[in-house]
Amino acid sequence: MDQRLALLLLLAFMVLASKLAASLSNRVGQPAVFGELLVGLILGPTVLDVMGWPMFSGEELKVVVKDLAEIGVVLLMFLAGLETELAQMRRVGLAAFNGAAGGVALPFGVGMLASRLFGLSWRESVFVGTVLTATSVSISAQTLMELGQLRSKEGTTILGAAVIDDVMGIIVLSLVVAFSRPGQAGLGSIGGLVLGMAAFFGLATWLGWSWLERLTEAVERHVRASEAVLAFAIVVLLAYAFAAEAFGRVAAITGSYLAGLLYAQTRFREMLLERLRVIGYGFFVPIFFVSIGLDANARTLGASWVFTVVVILVAVATKLVGAAAGAWLSRFTLMESLRVGVGMVSRGEVALIVASIGLSSGVIGREVFSIMVLMTLVTTLVTPLLLRGLFPRADAGPEAPGAASVGKGGPPHRRDG
Amino acid sequence: MDQRLALLLLLAFMVLASKLAASLSNRVGQPAVFGELLVGLILGPTVLDVMGWPMFSGEELKVVVKDLAEIGVVLLMFLAGLETELAQMRRVGLAAFNGAAGGVALPFGVGMLASRLFGLSWRESVFVGTVLTATSVSISAQTLMELGQLRSKEGTTILGAAVIDDVMGIIVLSLVVAFSRPGQAGLGSIGGLVLGMAAFFGLATWLGWSWLERLTEAVERHVRASEAVLAFAIVVLLAYAFAAEAFGRVAAITGSYLAGLLYAQTRFREMLLERLRVIGYGFFVPIFFVSIGLDANARTLGASWVFTVVVILVAVATKLVGAAAGAWLSRFTLMESLRVGVGMVSRGEVALIVASIGLSSGVIGREVFSIMVLMTLVTTLVTPLLLRGLFPRADAGPEAPGAASVGKGGPPHRRDG
Repeated sequence: MDQRLALLLLLAFMVLASKLAASLSNRVGQPAVFGELLVGLILGPTVLDVMGWPMFSGEELKVVVKDLAEIGVVLLMFLAGLETELAQMRRVGLAAFNGAAGGVALPFGVGMLASRLFGLSWRESVFVGTVLTATSVSISAQTLMELGQLRSKEGTTILGAAVIDDVMGIIVLSLVVAFSRPGQAGLGSIGGLVLGMAAFFGLATWLGWSWLERLTEAVERHVRASEAVLAFAIVVLLAYAFAAEAFGRVAAITGSYLAGLLYAQTRFREMLLERLRVIGYGFFVPIFFVSIGLDANARTLGASWVFTVVVILVAVATKLVGAAAGAWLSRFTLMESLRVGVGMVSRGEVALIVASIGLSSGVIGREVFSIMVLMTLVTTLVTPLLLRGLFPRADAGPEAPGAASVGKGGPPHRRDG
Repeated sequence: MDQRLALLLLLAFMVLASKLAASLSNRVGQPAVFGELLVGLILGPTVLDVMGWPMFSGEELKVVVKDLAEIGVVLLMFLAGLETELAQMRRVGLAAFNGAAGGVALPFGVGMLASRLFGLSWRESVFVGTVLTATSVSISAQTLMELGQLRSKEGTTILGAAVIDDVMGIIVLSLVVAFSRPGQAGLGSIGGLVLGMAAFFGLATWLGWSWLERLTEAVERHVRASEAVLAFAIVVLLAYAFAAEAFGRVAAITGSYLAGLLYAQTRFREMLLERLRVIGYGFFVPIFFVSIGLDANARTLGASWVFTVVVILVAVATKLVGAAAGAWLSRFTLMESLRVGVGMVSRGEVALIVASIGLSSGVIGREVFSIMVLMTLVTTLVTPLLLRGLFPRADAGPEAPGAASVGKGGPPHRRDG
């Protein structure tokens, strides 16, 4: 079949499968990402291997799907930046910060050491640790809402910690990408690297703070073209993504995430959120999630099932213990700390994005990549179950005023020593 | 440079250049498409040849840009379908229908014969004729609005004729594509072809009329996923585009245009228009227009400048005379007929889309393609000038109530025999 025609059919197929899977997943109480990932795995070499079918087996097709997913990733991280509420981050207080720090440090350290023990190279091990750091809070937020606990003490702590966790995860990723480039041995080159990173972040943030809003306002006022502001924001996010990797030596997604954070501080936030969601959720994001599954192959994991199980256990346990310890140190009770820890277990988009960067840059192999995909699936699956087990179900129903104050109840909930 | 990084930079560059050019073009009284096309020509081999620069010269990059433009084309034609008001088409009356018919038949016939005279093959000549049929009314609409003549007798006739012209152009294109495929010699295969086309149009239209709205409503009610309705419409348009070419043997854009026409009859029209405009104008359409310029090379036309000039003159003259004759036969005065004819001269998106289909399917060569791009530029440039010369400028300003009725004035304007 003509490659161009095959592309149209394949894209239709991917978007359709992704949305149906997301819906089914939501109906059985699982987050959309779980279904989207699972359907990708089913379409991929693990089960159906659609890219191996004669009509879809062209080389050009693989390249285009990969690049569309790539554009999707950059958009998704811009969207994540736009959605981050820096103001909220300042408010959350010490418990959330400590929870996030514990929930980043422990998975990173233990994940790295476990991988090293199973014979992975240092570079690969560091990358596995990095993938394990990123929490996806949407899954916990959904479950907490349904339990009427979103505004409880633990609920707000989880949400706050997840925001900080995202930023910390991005920092870890930036450092890992920067230092894992080939030829970074001598002290001089490390100095140059740090200088490049500092220059990029300094310049990009300064430009963003002092010029982005004014420049976008100028575009709004003076550029007479349809969707000029949106197009300009897309130019900025693409340029930041490019500059982050080309000049700052960090990952491209760090750049687009930073562009999103900066736009989140402007009055264009709402209109960009609305439009980027349309572009993202309507087309690019479904393609990204399905393409993750197409790249993974769970079938080949039989031989290394021990390592797979260990990584998944480490992912669940270290996030739970690390985040809970952070909360406990901030004078939460043991039960409250446990709830915070469980709420941080789920991984999602960011973990998958980091893993796919590792795969495409050749730092991790397809086998480790597939383990990361399975890890995301499992953590996503167990988080709502664990949360439901640990929280009392509020009788007043989701987000009723009574339910919202449950966790704020007086002294009995506090840990006093 | 890493291909993936180069892609981010190139896309940022293309979107930025396109929007700035569109704005500049609007400011000097030209339509956006003029600027977008011109900047594409400048970036292309005609002047700067950016795709030849070392950083953008990868093969993969060319493939991806081509495919993104391709997706943009399919979306753009869906949008054109959504924007078509079939109800208005029924109202416009005989003058518009005759104007459209004359404005399709004459450019097609004369364009084809002129090309044949200059030594092009029959297949190529038929294709050139097809490209010459498509009017782009947005340019005339903008000028008429500015002259306060949009609701005049000639204005409404031009708008109505352009809608019919679009549908006729699509029909001509469908026939040309279907019959210009290799191996369509015998009467039997032509019979099979007609049968396939009829089956596709019959089935696709029946499905659209009787199931599309209900199916989309079911998606709206039952599919719990973000932007599910939009994603479903994208699936439908991709599937229609695929089916049109794979089973109906017509062009893929015929399928997505048909999907747009069908959705235009449902209650989802407005929400889809809004979202598709965001996706299209914010990202895909700029890339399409710039990529047109990247594919053209006006530098090589020196040797065949006579043919170039002839084609452009034929494009202007035949559209003007054909459409004016149609109006004149419907009892318009000579001046009114001339105005209608002039209003139909400009070509735009559809001509470019048809030309790029011809190029990518190998029916026309790069030289003829470049002539078609120049033809679009020139017709777009002259239409507002001619319109301003032929219409009295309404003193009441754009679209004021007084201006709107100018053309409806009594007997002096009518041609009485």
